[in-house]
Amino acid sequence: MNIIEIIEKKKNSKELTKQEIDFFITEYTNGNITDYQAAALIMAIYLNGMTDKEITDLTLAMANSGDILDLSSINGIIVDKHSTGGVGDKVSIILLPLVSSLGVKVAKMSGRGLGFTGGTVDKLESIPGYKTNLTEEEFINNVNEIGISMISQTVNLAPADKKIYALRDSISCVDSIPLISSSIMSKKIASGADKIVLEVTYGRGAFMKNIEDATKLAKQMVRIGELANKETEYVLTEMNQPLGYAIGNSLEIIEAVQFLKGKKMPEDLKNVILEIGSHMIKLAGISDDLEKNKEAMLDNIANGKAYQKFLQMVQKQGGDITYLEDTDKFEKAKFIQEIKSDKDGKVKEIQADIIAKFVCELGAGRTKKEDNIDMSVGVILNKKVGDTVKKGDLLATVYSNSILLKDINQLLGIVY
Amino acid sequence: MNIIEIIEKKKNSKELTKQEIDFFITEYTNGNITDYQAAALIMAIYLNGMTDKEITDLTLAMANSGDILDLSSINGIIVDKHSTGGVGDKVSIILLPLVSSLGVKVAKMSGRGLGFTGGTVDKLESIPGYKTNLTEEEFINNVNEIGISMISQTVNLAPADKKIYALRDSISCVDSIPLISSSIMSKKIASGADKIVLEVTYGRGAFMKNIEDATKLAKQMVRIGELANKETEYVLTEMNQPLGYAIGNSLEIIEAVQFLKGKKMPEDLKNVILEIGSHMIKLAGISDDLEKNKEAMLDNIANGKAYQKFLQMVQKQGGDITYLEDTDKFEKAKFIQEIKSDKDGKVKEIQADIIAKFVCELGAGRTKKEDNIDMSVGVILNKKVGDTVKKGDLLATVYSNSILLKDINQLLGIVY
Repeated sequence: MNIIEIIEKKKNSKELTKQEIDFFITEYTNGNITDYQAAALIMAIYLNGMTDKEITDLTLAMANSGDILDLSSINGIIVDKHSTGGVGDKVSIILLPLVSSLGVKVAKMSGRGLGFTGGTVDKLESIPGYKTNLTEEEFINNVNEIGISMISQTVNLAPADKKIYALRDSISCVDSIPLISSSIMSKKIASGADKIVLEVTYGRGAFMKNIEDATKLAKQMVRIGELANKETEYVLTEMNQPLGYAIGNSLEIIEAVQFLKGKKMPEDLKNVILEIGSHMIKLAGISDDLEKNKEAMLDNIANGKAYQKFLQMVQKQGGDITYLEDTDKFEKAKFIQEIKSDKDGKVKEIQADIIAKFVCELGAGRTKKEDNIDMSVGVILNKKVGDTVKKGDLLATVYSNSILLKDINQLLGIVY
Repeated sequence: MNIIEIIEKKKNSKELTKQEIDFFITEYTNGNITDYQAAALIMAIYLNGMTDKEITDLTLAMANSGDILDLSSINGIIVDKHSTGGVGDKVSIILLPLVSSLGVKVAKMSGRGLGFTGGTVDKLESIPGYKTNLTEEEFINNVNEIGISMISQTVNLAPADKKIYALRDSISCVDSIPLISSSIMSKKIASGADKIVLEVTYGRGAFMKNIEDATKLAKQMVRIGELANKETEYVLTEMNQPLGYAIGNSLEIIEAVQFLKGKKMPEDLKNVILEIGSHMIKLAGISDDLEKNKEAMLDNIANGKAYQKFLQMVQKQGGDITYLEDTDKFEKAKFIQEIKSDKDGKVKEIQADIIAKFVCELGAGRTKKEDNIDMSVGVILNKKVGDTVKKGDLLATVYSNSILLKDINQLLGIVY
């Protein structure tokens, strides 16, 4: 077996065997296959596609290329969730304590943000003291003790996926359903969950630009889950504007806390959380009735149990919960600039990708892996799509540590 | 402009502009575009194809990536020829002195062999003293003085093509008509000829496995020639068995000398030479009548003018012509082994690729660029396809400098 023959097969639209896919992943991870041969194969996969069997074999090969988290010592069914991402996505921070408060076991390893996508772990770290780098033992113990732990990826999960992802980015092969689905599912499988709920986003702020492609991607991942014996369900979410009102690390934590306290629950954010959560509760074997699950979630917001679970987790991981009790304690950015409307109208769109790039430029995101990020900067929207705007109304507030010179309205991508 | 956008366009089957193709070739040659990005683009070109305009732009960009030979100081029309190659291909060595003896200007730079394809320059160097590394000035002077010079590629012709060719080889993207045609034509254009005759081979011993693909490739190259203002004609040749009887460097020179002397003119070799030569004489503006041109060629074999022209060229380039006058002077291999038939039959096929690999293993070819080659080893066939064989008949003679242990009949690929 050699890589040139494997490239040739895929180039000629033939199905690769499990042995061939394993060979490629193992030898590429080891550095015995060159980047240019991998690039040629990936382009051939991009253009000629893969069968379900090939995609599953690829997923498992990538999952097996590094550590596989062993969560078997946790009592109960571990249900993981994954979102293909959005701007202002603080879903995990609200959702996971919430479902945990209803008995779902949550053992969550999250990534850091890169580019204009924010990372859950980065956001959690804006809570002073919150430790995201627990040992595997601490992580498992916490889940067994209080039912939840959220940490950063400390083990070497799916290194082949990391290497291939970086390559795809530099050869314009990101938007491929076989490659996206195997990338996501390889990490989920390596993370050791028993069952998985996927939120596949579509629209301007997402990888998938329309509902048809999002459905294809979702169904592809469900098929991988089936073939890999990990029960998987999905929900689809439109992502044309940012989720909720806050974009930026500590600003999103504050929004999450307000949500968990039941103080302010933006409609779009609430819907996503109820959708994903109701499926997680179902997969955990607690109740198959999705509507009842949603009600139970709303109850646990109203009665404070979800917020208490969040406090418990933050405290357990060393975070200073006085910041959650009084969110005014979070350090504020130096410059707070209100953007007001200069005309009457109705908000037609808030371009999630443009606003995300702006917030990243403010310092909230990384352009390189080594970059430090600024926890305090970001944007809080005051209007969402469909809202009526009168001249002089507040559109958004920008939190910045540098003086802004450019035309902010345009940078924010608010069109009305 | 950046390479990721260019890859994306071709990935989406869009036509690249001349500027984009120039950017790719310039920056890849300079090392500013990585091999893996080039590999991804080449695979996308392989799978999505290119328009005639793109192929011509690619050809010209590769031709312009290095030196362009200026042959304008040669009086008369320079007609070049190119063959997509075959096993035992000594066509240039016979054909070029022959057409030169009829007034066609021949200024030929040839490559060395790599893999199991032999190189014209390697074969010429088996004539003791023959210098293939003339300066450009000597080369041009020789053509002006005696009408012919055949040397090795001393200038840096189409370095982009060299780099891309090596990459294609390692990513299974050799057999692509846009890529083969642009590769060949870029070198022809850089070599400075005014007009070009292409011999496109097909069959077991050739890149193109059937006449349909060979015709496509030929027509593609003619279109490039038209768009690049180099009048181009083609002939198609079947290449299932070796051309002529000899395979190996000095063995082929001996066969060429016998042909030029009119002593032994294998039918297949004669047909190829007459076909290409008649088109070269036409493009040189000497006569449009292809049949008359063939007759003139046969006349110049019979009256010795073709052989005299060859002697003149060899002498001019320092070669010892006593070896041509008496070919027994060529150093013989140590072991000469006759392969005789062990049954009666009729030769069904002589697998050109298998025999070529065998001769390469004997030491007649290079597996790496730096390898030395053995001038004396090779094979002389005694039977060709269609010939009747009686038990005990000589099938072939193997010239080797190492003792042969394997089953030679099988290595020779003679099936009957």
